[in-house]
Amino acid sequence: MANISQRFGRAVRKRRESSGYSQEAFATAAKIDRTYYSKIERGRANVSLALIERLVKTFGVDLADLFAGVDKE
Amino acid sequence: MANISQRFGRAVRKRRESSGYSQEAFATAAKIDRTYYSKIERGRANVSLALIERLVKTFGVDLADLFAGVDKE
Repeated sequence: MANISQRFGRAVRKRRESSGYSQEAFATAAKIDRTYYSKIERGRANVSLALIERLVKTFGVDLADLFAGVDKE
Repeated sequence: MANISQRFGRAVRKRRESSGYSQEAFATAAKIDRTYYSKIERGRANVSLALIERLVKTFGVDLADLFAGVDKE
């Protein structure tokens, strides 16, 4: 099984794509450095709670919704 | 509303208590430094994905289950 950063990155990428955001537009909306955001989607970031909160607020979803996607990866 | 570290800490504490673990026993089982684990429950740690994974594995729950508890805090 992929590690948790990889599973998280895939789930975030799917949600961002289904929301119709480009990587750049989403990173800007979430106030995350674009290069770092790209690392998140590629499963190369050990993301912290504070950043996870920025992601879910920008997506407009609950934490449990986002992590249900991670559980499925 | 409490910040995400505080909400996360409360949810982890409730789950740990309902599992019947002491703080020390749970920290040992999850291979987390006991002092750091205490900080997590007190909402003073910006926990990362890798550590979140250790918590859910030790609790034996899905990520979505743990974060549903955080959403409720």
